[in-house]
Amino acid sequence: MKPLKVALLGCGTVGSAVLRLVDEQAADLTARVGRPVQVAGVAVRRPDRHPDVPAGLLTTDALGLVTRDDVDLVVEVIGGIEPARTLIQAAIEAGKSVVSANKALLAEDGVALHAAAAKAGVDLYYEAAVAGAIPLLRPLRESLAGDQIRRVVGIVNGTTNYILSRMAETGHGFAEALAEATELGYAEADPTADVDGFDAAAKAAILASLGFHTAVTAADVHREGISSVTATDVARAAEIGCTVKLLAICERVPANGDGEGESVAVRVHPAMIPTSHPLAAVGGAFNAVFVEAEAAGQLMFYGQGAGGEPTASAVLGDLVAVARNRVAGAAGAGPTAYADLPARPIAETPTRYHVSLDVADVPGVLATVATAFAEHGVSIATVRQDGHGDAATLVIVTHSAPDAALSATIAALREVPAVRGVTSVLRVEGLS
Amino acid sequence: MKPLKVALLGCGTVGSAVLRLVDEQAADLTARVGRPVQVAGVAVRRPDRHPDVPAGLLTTDALGLVTRDDVDLVVEVIGGIEPARTLIQAAIEAGKSVVSANKALLAEDGVALHAAAAKAGVDLYYEAAVAGAIPLLRPLRESLAGDQIRRVVGIVNGTTNYILSRMAETGHGFAEALAEATELGYAEADPTADVDGFDAAAKAAILASLGFHTAVTAADVHREGISSVTATDVARAAEIGCTVKLLAICERVPANGDGEGESVAVRVHPAMIPTSHPLAAVGGAFNAVFVEAEAAGQLMFYGQGAGGEPTASAVLGDLVAVARNRVAGAAGAGPTAYADLPARPIAETPTRYHVSLDVADVPGVLATVATAFAEHGVSIATVRQDGHGDAATLVIVTHSAPDAALSATIAALREVPAVRGVTSVLRVEGLS
Repeated sequence: MKPLKVALLGCGTVGSAVLRLVDEQAADLTARVGRPVQVAGVAVRRPDRHPDVPAGLLTTDALGLVTRDDVDLVVEVIGGIEPARTLIQAAIEAGKSVVSANKALLAEDGVALHAAAAKAGVDLYYEAAVAGAIPLLRPLRESLAGDQIRRVVGIVNGTTNYILSRMAETGHGFAEALAEATELGYAEADPTADVDGFDAAAKAAILASLGFHTAVTAADVHREGISSVTATDVARAAEIGCTVKLLAICERVPANGDGEGESVAVRVHPAMIPTSHPLAAVGGAFNAVFVEAEAAGQLMFYGQGAGGEPTASAVLGDLVAVARNRVAGAAGAGPTAYADLPARPIAETPTRYHVSLDVADVPGVLATVATAFAEHGVSIATVRQDGHGDAATLVIVTHSAPDAALSATIAALREVPAVRGVTSVLRVEGLS
Repeated sequence: MKPLKVALLGCGTVGSAVLRLVDEQAADLTARVGRPVQVAGVAVRRPDRHPDVPAGLLTTDALGLVTRDDVDLVVEVIGGIEPARTLIQAAIEAGKSVVSANKALLAEDGVALHAAAAKAGVDLYYEAAVAGAIPLLRPLRESLAGDQIRRVVGIVNGTTNYILSRMAETGHGFAEALAEATELGYAEADPTADVDGFDAAAKAAILASLGFHTAVTAADVHREGISSVTATDVARAAEIGCTVKLLAICERVPANGDGEGESVAVRVHPAMIPTSHPLAAVGGAFNAVFVEAEAAGQLMFYGQGAGGEPTASAVLGDLVAVARNRVAGAAGAGPTAYADLPARPIAETPTRYHVSLDVADVPGVLATVATAFAEHGVSIATVRQDGHGDAATLVIVTHSAPDAALSATIAALREVPAVRGVTSVLRVEGLS
């Protein structure tokens, strides 16, 4: 049997795990695919840094490799926009099916790449781009293809999850927890992509696109990172039976009666969630994603969100799928984007807030504060007032209101003379 | 566009939900599939009992319906072996792709049905057969196709899970909890399939077949139900920080050095698991399945395991998949069974036991008991001894040993004069 030949682009942690697993599992892959699967070449920038890879496979000419006549399938694990985009486009145009783990590229340019793949009759799969080893994109795209997904909420970034877990455990602030994460290798030297939410936002865009059958790019995602989460926020969360998590939230907002059509609201921000919520128990480098669908109800997917081997597992699952399709002489069904829903700005997206205030303990202060909420049309769900000396702490959890109304309320509270300080503001999710 | 026509076999809770969802989501299904999907007929035994179904669709001639020239796809939600088997075979031979929710049939006859589907070049999908709405079979078959699955452990029967949860909450025995479940509609009038583990065993056979690429039938599954679980078992579990669950456990047992080849061990039985284990928190009618794979590590899938709408969601996901394949003119890749692994008998399968004994509180009784374990080659992990008057309770948790050695130990203990009673014996899973 003629083997299917694979071009591997990139040979870092994930790439080298892919290379090893394709070799170790050669017999299984042959049986599962129906033909042997062989790595035909590995494109890297610095061949001398890959002594473990057979020298005959290594090349610096990635473009030459992906367009080689004998290459059937391309695995891209370089990451980042360029040169990954150019290489994937060239591969697709040359009739190769592509497996990618590239969340940034798919979130930015998924529509164009999918169109190119459909035109060329090849596959473009990228299960590894979101939540590592967790089978998530295939379930969204295929298993739930006969259902209406309403909401996807997940912890999709292990670095920030580790940092927030450590803040809760130690009482430390963000800077100390980040320093610890960096030292232990859980955070990269430049942690921006993780801590500022770029990584999670790219994943949210991909989840929303697949889940809602519409094009969502990273630019459509409202993004707030965790660098402004304070030890006080984390302590306040614990006081109300919550824990702080960086959430990626994708919602399909129904049309309202006022002529406003359906839309999607996609956002990444830290939020307090009840400790009884299944996502609250997701610790360290694990990822978990909740999906709410009309007929299926609530589903949860849990597993390792990163790492060489887990990510390689997802890459290889896709590799088997595109290889089987190649053997069958057909491409699989790509995602659809027919719904064409606009992205709803965060200002108009309904959210709930937790607000802690230091106030003067004088009669009427609660009334004044409550008035500020009411004037912005924000309804209060719970208030706790703790007096201490001439001061008091007010802890308020609101009902759901447009985010702009909530922000405006906070701004107004900062101007109230009896409010000495707004000590903690965080959105709240998952409260009934 | 010419619609794809669907024959629906059965119109109970699941069938009527399928019928409704196909109608309600007509526009979405058309966009996702690329052609409209239309129900062409509904086969039922008693048409007069389905006043909600358009009379023109109803027929009692199921065989005529599935072989009708204009029918492209068949959805079977009758359940049970016959007439489902005959109808599915006829459909496949007539070139129709089939979606089924029939765990009993797939667990008994999956190999033959898959062979028939492969020969006819049609699809046979059955995501709804295991764990209702939870996308599980597609992830096993496709997402993890490039990995080596070692173990699948799940709670896959909602009725028994409800009964065991209630026993833990109320302290009641099995009979009372079953009566309550029956009254509330969580258990069927004849609860045998659920409480005796037949339902879970069929699901375990399907999971093992897909996960290990080998043919496993329900007859290969060691099966124990929950009817012999006592209030004492549940109380003892709580005392050692555990909870009792009915587990479906599928393991791939590696070859050993003694020339014994690789095998699969598949079993369904009640077991104590630590309350800290993620499966312990799965309550009521929910299902959850843990998958352990070489590269992916641990994954968990959670959601509603039964019910009309959740099951219909899974059926519709498969319906979209087979419809897309039909539009593309190709069948999807079926499961592979190349591994051809023998089923390991429960006697040779390593398990761990919890044993509670009422013993005479005399010197040397622990030594006598410990000797009984040692003589059978069973190593003890922990012992707790609580004296009260002239009697004492011994609570023993063993290390892993072949199940036969553990059973033989229990039998031997019953003959020890100082042992007044063996008050609780249950396997233990998930302890480190």
